[in-house]
Amino acid sequence: MIIIGERINGMFRDIARAIREKDPGPVQEWARKQEAMGAGYLDINVGPAVADRVSAMRWLVEVTQEATKLPLCLDSTDYDAIEAGLEICKQPAMINSVPAIAEKMDRIFTMASKYNAEVIGLAMNEEGIPKDAESRVALAMELVANCDAYGVPIDSLYIDPLVLPCNVGQAHGPEVFETLRQIKLLSDPPPKTVVGLSNISQGTKNRELINRTFAVMAMACGLDAAIADACDEELIAAIATARVLLNMDIYCDSYVDVFKSQNQ
Amino acid sequence: MIIIGERINGMFRDIARAIREKDPGPVQEWARKQEAMGAGYLDINVGPAVADRVSAMRWLVEVTQEATKLPLCLDSTDYDAIEAGLEICKQPAMINSVPAIAEKMDRIFTMASKYNAEVIGLAMNEEGIPKDAESRVALAMELVANCDAYGVPIDSLYIDPLVLPCNVGQAHGPEVFETLRQIKLLSDPPPKTVVGLSNISQGTKNRELINRTFAVMAMACGLDAAIADACDEELIAAIATARVLLNMDIYCDSYVDVFKSQNQ
Repeated sequence: MIIIGERINGMFRDIARAIREKDPGPVQEWARKQEAMGAGYLDINVGPAVADRVSAMRWLVEVTQEATKLPLCLDSTDYDAIEAGLEICKQPAMINSVPAIAEKMDRIFTMASKYNAEVIGLAMNEEGIPKDAESRVALAMELVANCDAYGVPIDSLYIDPLVLPCNVGQAHGPEVFETLRQIKLLSDPPPKTVVGLSNISQGTKNRELINRTFAVMAMACGLDAAIADACDEELIAAIATARVLLNMDIYCDSYVDVFKSQNQ
Repeated sequence: MIIIGERINGMFRDIARAIREKDPGPVQEWARKQEAMGAGYLDINVGPAVADRVSAMRWLVEVTQEATKLPLCLDSTDYDAIEAGLEICKQPAMINSVPAIAEKMDRIFTMASKYNAEVIGLAMNEEGIPKDAESRVALAMELVANCDAYGVPIDSLYIDPLVLPCNVGQAHGPEVFETLRQIKLLSDPPPKTVVGLSNISQGTKNRELINRTFAVMAMACGLDAAIADACDEELIAAIATARVLLNMDIYCDSYVDVFKSQNQ
């Protein structure tokens, strides 16, 4: 499973300050730290409190790329900000994200095609997040059909079944696992899958235990990627172990360290 | 998932000594400890070094039942020893185990019917353990058909897909997950599933990490029970978490403690 490091996000106070004061220090430190822990992509999100999201995104992308060669996952509901980031990405990026809503898919898949970008597609539409797997899969199919229609390769599409906190949306858990399994049957090649991992534990005690348990259970159902805390040592160890148990990485006694070093 | 506590086994030195010296102390201590951690059954195995396995099994069952009301899982390749145990079990027990071999199934399913016992059926035959999921499922189907023919309820049958250590049989991992999923499609009601958890990590470093990661991944594929170390705190916490994420137990902040106390 690919870890998309979640830490360069204006929701965190140090990153919000860095953006405000144009201080590349914290951004580049988190870029290096997450890479060292085995992150395969870095999520880049300017956060909610920024007035000019286009220029903030451009600055974040620039300073992050000075510190790492990892591909970036441009995370915003402001599609102009995403496009501003795509213009200067040195290698193909991931767009985070688009729901199954026609005019939004039009804008995003057109961009993805132009910039050779991957896309995170959300299994939701104007009516919100479905309750069951069946409706999530139907929305995933809409995303797949649009992805294909715009000439974006299906395996550049990452479907996010949308995870709710287990303390308030507990019934969604098994539905998300079932959605992950069924998405792999939608097409050949199938789309990839992704979750925003820390959503599952929002507002709970035992956040890290819940995150890492959910992550490896979802991997057993076909999860390909997660936006997650790449600096959570036990999460990384659990993911490395699940990769060995799924026969994706070869077992050796030091497989956890091997996993961390794979991008370096 | 049900934990079948593995600790009352003559493979462990303290239990071997207890059997030899007819000292109920260690047996009863482990019975109470495993129950307190949330075990739903206790595995009872006289071990390899005992001359008279019939009388040793009878003694182990007797002294265990003085310490706990938990149902027992009688674990032996000596079917006379298993029958001796069944005769004195105060409540329906589990038989561990029978392969898909005609004369062994005849003996075990006849016993199961007579004593109202559950049965662990191994997805193997005279030719050993299959390499792939397909062949494992075919053997599971033989076990289901025989179980039914002898009048034993299908949901009293626990199929063990057979887990090999991930350092030597790594390719078996995904096949076991796939077998677990497919077993649930064999009949309605489907048989249950079980694994010998510690097999997955035999001879590896990070044994506990591998055990608990495998356990929750297998639960996401439909695993119902595991013969496991009920005193591994982190394993218990991971299993309790997986049960919440599968919506089998209701979330509350103290769900790990609630899980442990469920049998008491």
